Parts: sequence; C-alpha cells; structure tokens
Amino acid sequence: MGMPLEMNWMIVTKGKEEKVVEEENCFKLTKDGYRLYPLDIAVVEVRKTKEAATIGLAEIKEMIWKDGNTTIVYMLKKLNGVN
Amino acid sequence: MGMPLEMNWMIVTKGKEEKVVEEENCFKLTKDGYRLYPLDIAVVEVRKTKEAATIGLAEIKEMIWKDGNTTIVYMLKKLNGVN
Amino acid sequence: MGMPLEMNWMIVTKGKEEKVVEEENCFKLTKDGYRLYPLDIAVVEVRKTKEAATIGLAEIKEMIWKDGNTTIVYMLKKLNGVN
Amino acid sequence: MGMPLEMNWMIVTKGKEEKVVEEENCFKLTKDGYRLYPLDIAVVEVRKTKEAATIGLAEIKEMIWKDGNTTIVYMLKKLNGVN
Repeated sequence: MGMPLEMNWMIVTKGKEEKVVEEENCFKLTKDGYRLYPLDIAVVEVRKTKEAATIGLAEIKEMIWKDGNTTIVYMLKKLNGVN
Repeated sequence: MGMPLEMNWMIVTKGKEEKVVEEENCFKLTKDGYRLYPLDIAVVEVRKTKEAATIGLAEIKEMIWKDGNTTIVYMLKKLNGVN
Repeated sequence: MGMPLEMNWMIVTKGKEEKVVEEENCFKLTKDGYRLYPLDIAVVEVRKTKEAATIGLAEIKEMIWKDGNTTIVYMLKKLNGVN
Repeated sequence: MGMPLEMNWMIVTKGKEEKVVEEENCFKLTKDGYRLYPLDIAVVEVRKTKEAATIGLAEIKEMIWKDGNTTIVYMLKKLNGVN
C-alpha cells in the first residue's frame, strides 16, 4: 500500500538521451523506476554520469510515468565549456 | 527554486474523464497542476466529486506532467453499486 | 544523486504504535525508510496489516524523517466496529 | 483530498537559520509549508536568497513536518570562498 519513487534534481543521461528532431536542443530520456523531477525550471544540471562534470543546465518540459519507467523531455539551456 | 505539487491518492473526475476507446474500462483525465498519484496499484478510489460516494477502484497506468497539467490514464477495476 | 522514498496514504501499524500519554487517541509510529504521508487530513486509514480490515481513520499531525526512518504522530478520529 | 507540498533541492535560509550549539557546523531552519528535501546526501546547496551565491554544501540530517511548517537540521560540509 505504498509506492516507491525517487526524488531527482539532476539529469544523469548515461549517454542514453535521444534528440527530439523537431525542436532545437530538445532531448528525450527514459530511466527505470518512477522518478520525480522538477519541471519548468531552467536549473537542472545535466551530466553524463553522476560523477562527471556538468554538461549544462536544462529545463524539463514533460515527465511521463508508465510501465515502471520515467521518460523526460528536456531543453538544454546553457552549455558548459563551449568556446 | 522549489516546485509545487500535490500528493493525490484518489481520482476526483468532476465528470471530465474521457473513455479510451481501444481499451475496456480505461479512462483518461487531465487536471490542473502537477499531481503525484500512486501508479500500478489497484486501490485508488474514483469519485465524481470529493464528497461523493466512491464509483469504484482504479489502477492508474500512466501519469503525464506537461504544461502545468497532469494527465492520468486509469483502468476501472471494481465498480460500486452495480446490480 | 537521487533520494528514494515511498508515497504512503494509509497507516499500517504492524502493532508497533505507541500511545502518546498526554493526548487522547494520539499515537506515535516509526517505520523504516523515508515515507511521504498526507498530513492534516482526517482521512487516512489505519490498519494493523496491509490486508487487515480498517481500524479507523486518522489525522497525521507530525512527520519526522531522520536516520533513514520515518516517525509519524497521528490522532485516531473515527473507530470502526466499536460498539 | 490532496496535500500540497513543494519539492526543494536547495536550502534558502533568508538568514533565519539557528545554530545547533551541541554540534559543529549544524543548523536548524524552519520554513512555511510542507517541503520535501533530499536527506543524507551532502550535495544540497545553501544560499541566503534564491539569487545569491552559494554559501556552501550541506547534508540534511532531519526533516520535520508539523503545523503547516517544515523544519530541517543540516550540517554545512563545504564552505565557499573561505580562504
């Protein structure tokens, strides 16, 4: 009579993100389990692994819970290290 | 730097649910705000209004957060008062 | 970079609740893990086990997360089957 | 039949934190509303205001929800700009 979930406030891609072709800088990522992310706030760090440096900041636009997985759609807003 | 949400453990339809035609006893409902529902557990009460009697129990199969709204897809599992 | 928790909307005591002596019908219960309960709403079912019948309805007045455990303080509001 | 709460992943003190005298670098802070913070992870930024620079990183050790308020106890782990 309980539902496990995980509070997340960072996007860790493990390189599994897919580009959403119709929109610039827009990505889709599916992770296992039900994960609660903050939406509509352009301050979520994106990393390839938990320990890696930040790739940039993103704004999560959509969060879908289904079949035990979480899918998010996010816009990369600010990139690190682009010279 | 915070995200408001509402913890919900009952479906209050206000009569706005739509039938998902491909699936029996399956409905789709959109509510304003980001609402956290329990998924995959067939024990969620369904009511037309908060104070109304329970229509039945449902299992929520999908939860989508987007544009400030929450959409759920649920299966009615047990109906009350059907004789 | 995530924190697991469990959404709960029912109190399952397993008989481990303790009476809070200063207050009538007031109980304290500690459960393992971080569990998110609804507070200040007198509609939370209390059961001894998940499958058992409902003892009554309670209003949770306090929720404490510490050392990997959750402690709640709740008031029993309506008892079932007490004649 | 819902409970509003706010997901938080940063401590914004507004200068209202109180030192816990028995423990070094340990602080107590009460905020209005029910706020969900990550516990036991030493990666929570501390700021005086939302827009201010980060004071340091903290690990939240305790979270208490009561009377419509949230109290957290946290340890400052890493200070910024202290030379």
